Amino acid sequence: MSPALNGPGSFPGPVPESFPEPVSKSASDLPQGASARASSALVHGVASGVPADTPRTKGELTRAAILDAALAWSATEGIEGLTIGLLAERMHMSKSGVFAHFGSREDLQIAVVQAYHQRFVADVFLPAMQQPRGLPRLEALFANWVHRVTLEISQGCIYIGGAVEYDDRPGPVRAALIELVGIWRGALLRASQQAVECGHLAADTDPTQLVFEVCGLVLSLHHDARFLKLDGCTGRAHAGFARLVDSYRSSRG
Amino acid sequence: MSPALNGPGSFPGPVPESFPEPVSKSASDLPQGASARASSALVHGVASGVPADTPRTKGELTRAAILDAALAWSATEGIEGLTIGLLAERMHMSKSGVFAHFGSREDLQIAVVQAYHQRFVADVFLPAMQQPRGLPRLEALFANWVHRVTLEISQGCIYIGGAVEYDDRPGPVRAALIELVGIWRGALLRASQQAVECGHLAADTDPTQLVFEVCGLVLSLHHDARFLKLDGCTGRAHAGFARLVDSYRSSRG
Repeated sequence: MSPALNGPGSFPGPVPESFPEPVSKSASDLPQGASARASSALVHGVASGVPADTPRTKGELTRAAILDAALAWSATEGIEGLTIGLLAERMHMSKSGVFAHFGSREDLQIAVVQAYHQRFVADVFLPAMQQPRGLPRLEALFANWVHRVTLEISQGCIYIGGAVEYDDRPGPVRAALIELVGIWRGALLRASQQAVECGHLAADTDPTQLVFEVCGLVLSLHHDARFLKLDGCTGRAHAGFARLVDSYRSSRG
Repeated sequence: MSPALNGPGSFPGPVPESFPEPVSKSASDLPQGASARASSALVHGVASGVPADTPRTKGELTRAAILDAALAWSATEGIEGLTIGLLAERMHMSKSGVFAHFGSREDLQIAVVQAYHQRFVADVFLPAMQQPRGLPRLEALFANWVHRVTLEISQGCIYIGGAVEYDDRPGPVRAALIELVGIWRGALLRASQQAVECGHLAADTDPTQLVFEVCGLVLSLHHDARFLKLDGCTGRAHAGFARLVDSYRSSRG
């Protein structure tokens, strides 16, 4: 587990046992070691200081409500726009009341990134894992991702927005973002590799290149629909993916 | 000309006569009317209140130096991070000295976007126009763009960063960004259409879809190289483009 994910902001559970292990260090992989640490964090479960998915005590309910408000705020205004004072105002709480649940602004920001990841795993990753290994699973990962980004267009995606917010801002929030984005890309990479292993994609497919191109389609969807406010972007992302898969498909596929 | 480009922030010259006209309104086009207005602004030349490319007077030199500093700052920290006070400090000038050149913070921000566009036109668009119509020109537009984004990795691209900064922030800065990004996409669309007309790409090519996919490659390059700090992203963008063009190429191509 990386230092960024220690303490009050430790990685939330529950965690999928089948979340991908890192495969290679390349343009679609994580910075060295990050995937291994994150994967370990995922597999070995819920860390201290973070409530389980379903809040039970009054304190957990309050924390979950603060986190909901913080997530909504961060999606629209950016994670850097988040302050304890602002959240306290929104929640009609005192600042010390918010501090009791999140030790610092940075802990709160990391908790937001982790909560986003937890929802991403539940909405995008886990349902796709019900599909057979190989191309069906890769297609489901992509379709679920596009669906989620399409639903988020009015707010913005914390991963994509965060990438611009934290591209030049070192620190634990950036480290958490990089780690979690890397885990997601690891899942895409693993599914692409399995699609090759299963013979659904040509044997000479470069899975890292495929992931680079697939991520581009989703970045284009987010850019065009959210910034340019264009119509038809979801269809364009799907059409691009179908073209991409066709061009990588083996004759056996 | 849109209201956003009136006044002190009017569109800077010089302008390429061959900059593309809008072709259709779709996922790779501009919001309605924006391209026509911007294209007209480009074709009809230098508007009032903006100095020509080469500063001549001491006032113009000072303005150009302020703009340089503002561009560098905006690329790294974002356009919203720009203030008159900050620039004055950087330039060892008084705030009123900066105000004399840029009437307001918003005018300064719009001038930054326009100055960026002017450089983008000079570095990316104009050299590509030396190539023959069709695929050679489209390839040159892409290669020049990738080259520029690669050079900018340590700072960030104002168009790509601005898209996230201003996705939910209406106003003249967002309008200027949308207009200028749209002009660039219009150039890519026109080149793609010409590649079809010239028979370099298959007759059933959807140029708007092609532009959506091409832009995705550059967004992926920027994301992976700047945020994730991965190596080899420029090569991945080029490989993706070559694959894309192959898949759209006609048998005559």
